[in-house]
Amino acid sequence: MQALTLDKLLSYRNDISIPDLATGEALIELRLAGICATDLELVKGYAGFSGILGHEFVGTVTAVADDKHRDWLNRRVVGSINIGCNVCEVCRRDGPEHCLHRKVLGIRGKDGVFADYFSLPVANLYTVPEAVPDQAAVFTEPLAAALRVVKQIAALPITDIAVVGPGRLGLLIAKVLSLAGYRVTVLGRSAASLALPKQWQLATGLITDIADNRFDCVVDASGQAAGFAQALRIVKPRGTLVLKSTFAGNAALDLSKVVVYEINIIGSRCGPFADALALLAENKLPVETMIDGQYQLQDGLAAFEHAAQAGVRKILLQPAKPHEPCR
Amino acid sequence: MQALTLDKLLSYRNDISIPDLATGEALIELRLAGICATDLELVKGYAGFSGILGHEFVGTVTAVADDKHRDWLNRRVVGSINIGCNVCEVCRRDGPEHCLHRKVLGIRGKDGVFADYFSLPVANLYTVPEAVPDQAAVFTEPLAAALRVVKQIAALPITDIAVVGPGRLGLLIAKVLSLAGYRVTVLGRSAASLALPKQWQLATGLITDIADNRFDCVVDASGQAAGFAQALRIVKPRGTLVLKSTFAGNAALDLSKVVVYEINIIGSRCGPFADALALLAENKLPVETMIDGQYQLQDGLAAFEHAAQAGVRKILLQPAKPHEPCR
Ligand SMILES: [Zn+2]
Ligand SMILES: [Zn+2]
Ligand SMILES: [Zn+2]
Ligand SMILES: [Zn+2]
Repeated sequence: MQALTLDKLLSYRNDISIPDLATGEALIELRLAGICATDLELVKGYAGFSGILGHEFVGTVTAVADDKHRDWLNRRVVGSINIGCNVCEVCRRDGPEHCLHRKVLGIRGKDGVFADYFSLPVANLYTVPEAVPDQAAVFTEPLAAALRVVKQIAALPITDIAVVGPGRLGLLIAKVLSLAGYRVTVLGRSAASLALPKQWQLATGLITDIADNRFDCVVDASGQAAGFAQALRIVKPRGTLVLKSTFAGNAALDLSKVVVYEINIIGSRCGPFADALALLAENKLPVETMIDGQYQLQDGLAAFEHAAQAGVRKILLQPAKPHEPCR
Repeated sequence: MQALTLDKLLSYRNDISIPDLATGEALIELRLAGICATDLELVKGYAGFSGILGHEFVGTVTAVADDKHRDWLNRRVVGSINIGCNVCEVCRRDGPEHCLHRKVLGIRGKDGVFADYFSLPVANLYTVPEAVPDQAAVFTEPLAAALRVVKQIAALPITDIAVVGPGRLGLLIAKVLSLAGYRVTVLGRSAASLALPKQWQLATGLITDIADNRFDCVVDASGQAAGFAQALRIVKPRGTLVLKSTFAGNAALDLSKVVVYEINIIGSRCGPFADALALLAENKLPVETMIDGQYQLQDGLAAFEHAAQAGVRKILLQPAKPHEPCR
């Protein structure tokens, strides 16, 4: 089969065998996959992963390892990306997302989805509602991550929120916070980057125009140390800073405001797939407007180049032949 | 009067006038003052303060601006260091500690206590119980700051706590957390630095001996970027990192664990003076064992040199003549 593999360098190959299934796993045929910032970081060497890349997908189950899972055959699915050890204290208390021994689809110890076929435990799968087209379903994982922020701040006294970084994740976060009733402003570094947030009916602003200490809560989805510094600058005393994106390596940061103004920094990662699919089924977010290009796997290297360009939100990958609509 | 003044350089002067009192203020004669890490940072230029240094004190009220405050005369007092504007939203909601327009005794816009006399609003003063000697009362401010940590983590599911940094503040934090019923370990970089924590009956360890992801909660009281990095390393997934001390300027930090393991970072600063004085009155903490030296104001520069040495916890300053016991 075809696959985009990382072994220091990213390559397109068409000599890879279809994966064997472990107990509890399903074999999934790719329908559509998304390239995300994490994939770009992995290609740069962050986390030292080697194997088949990719973790955002919608696919069709074509085989299952266990007979009791035959119900899943031919279903159109998305899937959560963490595979916990299922025995440690963390797995039992918090779930597989935080297990220290976990594998992560296309990120750590587990081949990913930029391939004709890939495997994942049935426990990780979610059936995609008919109302959700492939081009929306492929946003389930980042939308779930966005919903995680809503849950984490639910109990805090927050009215005004700024989202720093108008990229794909920032846009999803801003929209779900807005749907949850918060007063949300999307902040970017250029007017061009704010066009799509405006089209999504979100308030926008240039980050450099914002006064210090202005927002109850600031979500940093910029993926850059400079964005984090700006987020810290504009959060109110005793406010909340949600750190949603990592930046590779060490960055020069000044955390003195965190102490002096008792800022609460909340790290935020994966979220609830079922809730994300429900939102997509209600057609609450025009996620397809974030798609800047769609490539075949064999053109994967060009797709990665496109995805790395400034201002590009989402590049999709599809197998060579277009799929039949799912019955 | 005598005073230690900062104007880029630290100087001892004996030609300073006794301060005039603003409405609501008291004039306080110094009994004993403490040099803390913040003072050392200020001398290095952090925060750009110029004026009389010093904010940890015990003194005697010798005059009041308003007749209605005559009760305070001759009382032995300690005082909180933030003077809010009293009109802004932050002052009304959170108190003066977080007011953006605030003055801070010996730190920002307000002359401090390394002088024969200084002034402070009566609203900031607390009477020292008779059972508390000057050499204990002078620890009220850092002890209050330590108690703030107990309050901030009270609602969280925490059993095991590490305190990184066995200095003065770290020791106080570890002891109050231990008194509050937590299982506490004090971590340092050398065996020598752990001798006093042991004498205080606290569990101790070398930070480099600690495995990754070990503690529910880690308090960073190290005042160093390297200490923060260690604190982040040893906190459990979804754990809490209390950031208690600042480090001057930018430091190279990697915050990716904060996102990937959803760490909660809580900035922590000032705390409740009344609770600190009550603990000191019960003689629950052998604070005097932290005193490494006591100097007269006129030897203030030597005192600062001593305070800046590695492993020194607390250097005190006194006016030239020893005081009569307070009636
Ligand atoms: Zn992703
Ligand atoms: Zn596990
Ligand atoms: Zn201090
Ligand atoms: Zn104020």
